[in-house]
Amino acid sequence: MTFSQRLFERIHQTNSRVCLGIDPRPEAHPLTHPDRFDDDPAQVAKAVVYYFRAIIEATQDLVACYKPQAAFFEALGIPGLIALAQIIADIKARDIPLILDAKRGDIGSTADAYARSYLGDGVFSSDALTVNPYLGSDGLKPFVDIAVKKDRGLFVLVKTSNPGSQDFQDVVTNDGRKLYELVADQINNLAEQTRGEAKYSPIGAVVGATHPLELSALRQRLPHSIFLVPGYGAQGGTATDVAATFDNAGLGAIVNSSRGLTYQSQGDDFAQQAQEATIAMRDALNQAIAGR
Amino acid sequence: MTFSQRLFERIHQTNSRVCLGIDPRPEAHPLTHPDRFDDDPAQVAKAVVYYFRAIIEATQDLVACYKPQAAFFEALGIPGLIALAQIIADIKARDIPLILDAKRGDIGSTADAYARSYLGDGVFSSDALTVNPYLGSDGLKPFVDIAVKKDRGLFVLVKTSNPGSQDFQDVVTNDGRKLYELVADQINNLAEQTRGEAKYSPIGAVVGATHPLELSALRQRLPHSIFLVPGYGAQGGTATDVAATFDNAGLGAIVNSSRGLTYQSQGDDFAQQAQEATIAMRDALNQAIAGR
Repeated sequence: MTFSQRLFERIHQTNSRVCLGIDPRPEAHPLTHPDRFDDDPAQVAKAVVYYFRAIIEATQDLVACYKPQAAFFEALGIPGLIALAQIIADIKARDIPLILDAKRGDIGSTADAYARSYLGDGVFSSDALTVNPYLGSDGLKPFVDIAVKKDRGLFVLVKTSNPGSQDFQDVVTNDGRKLYELVADQINNLAEQTRGEAKYSPIGAVVGATHPLELSALRQRLPHSIFLVPGYGAQGGTATDVAATFDNAGLGAIVNSSRGLTYQSQGDDFAQQAQEATIAMRDALNQAIAGR
Repeated sequence: MTFSQRLFERIHQTNSRVCLGIDPRPEAHPLTHPDRFDDDPAQVAKAVVYYFRAIIEATQDLVACYKPQAAFFEALGIPGLIALAQIIADIKARDIPLILDAKRGDIGSTADAYARSYLGDGVFSSDALTVNPYLGSDGLKPFVDIAVKKDRGLFVLVKTSNPGSQDFQDVVTNDGRKLYELVADQINNLAEQTRGEAKYSPIGAVVGATHPLELSALRQRLPHSIFLVPGYGAQGGTATDVAATFDNAGLGAIVNSSRGLTYQSQGDDFAQQAQEATIAMRDALNQAIAGR
């Protein structure tokens, strides 16, 4: 089964288009606060696993997929990376699609090493990976090759949710296209080459919820790419902003929220609060799609 | 002491501008070959540490700095990351500047987490880090802030050594500048803001040896940035190609070679062969600079 088949089957089962982002911020919650563990990274990492396992348990029927953010695990050193492997194993054991947000990018054999790290068979093996296009087509190719071979997915950064995305991504080139449109067109070529008979290819795109006009235009420009949409909630994107990202069948995209779902409470009810926030987001997305 | 002071003091001591790249390719050498260890990643990682410790021992007076490539360690999973921490500790114990080549890039608190991971005080603490500019100025800022605060360095990807770097980096924008020139100009602004009284700021640039014309032009455009120059040797760049990267004092750049130095022999003389290749590269660079 391809990544898109797997993801869409899951969306049908759960009626949810929510991607729950797992961004451990140990300082943000008493349960994982470093002060509780005298700054011992192994103890902090253990608390992170406990915290997110409880959230996964409480949200597992409410999400399309989970998206751990590699940076926050790397910041906890070796214990943090063991925690990432544990959380990945937990999500896989539940057979829920898993996107690793690591924004890797390099060339040749180095890109291939990253692709093997995160789309191969090791402890960080994920169903899909976010990648950065700055290095060009020969930087993307090793990721594409492994994604196709192993039925995994890629989400290439196109137009990110931050204000500074205008600095380079919005630059107008001498043929009139913006840089992110050039990137999109290259992704569309890759999508055409890899989709076979399917509507959606393994090569998806990251497009921020904070740019609703660009989101609609890119939806037309990338008919064969699943969109991973960050920037919902905490960063300002609304359900109405992202509704146009979905195709007529209500598929073709997933919308991420991280701290907006997972750091809603300073108390012992953190998992229940995450559950309620996830239900609210799921329903808001579905209503916005139904109301188009 | 700032990163550039530290690096230049080291170049004076060693009279070497060689950056020795540590890219573990366990399949490339009998000593680290996975078949020897029944594919046990812990054993492979241990062999990697043994292999590169021997190479560091043999080259420690011959290099300006070492540059481990994160991807190849990540591909070995948790044991690979422990190996990375061990190799970082080994290089730090010898007080040799260390650049981690991880090409990270993200926004806001996520970029800050990457910066803390690699420029902070943890087991992956490095003197400098490579970063990807695609996300824009607010993606770079957390890295710049920590680099300045902790006297560390950054090397921002400008014009990479691969053929596909033309796809996006060479795109001509509507003001006539190529994208990589726009990126360079933004780096120069950051360099101006962070250099204080020094000629060189903590904000350096990655520019491939395979583009000698662009290398000279970028040297003029980025007078306050140290250049990290990949693409020497195996990828085709020569000492003559990179000579113009150095300022009149023979400073302002380091030239990387990885497999061209470290996988020269299939036999037990691998460290000695690495030593001889490093001496040859050091001398070729110095002669090309003297001959300008």
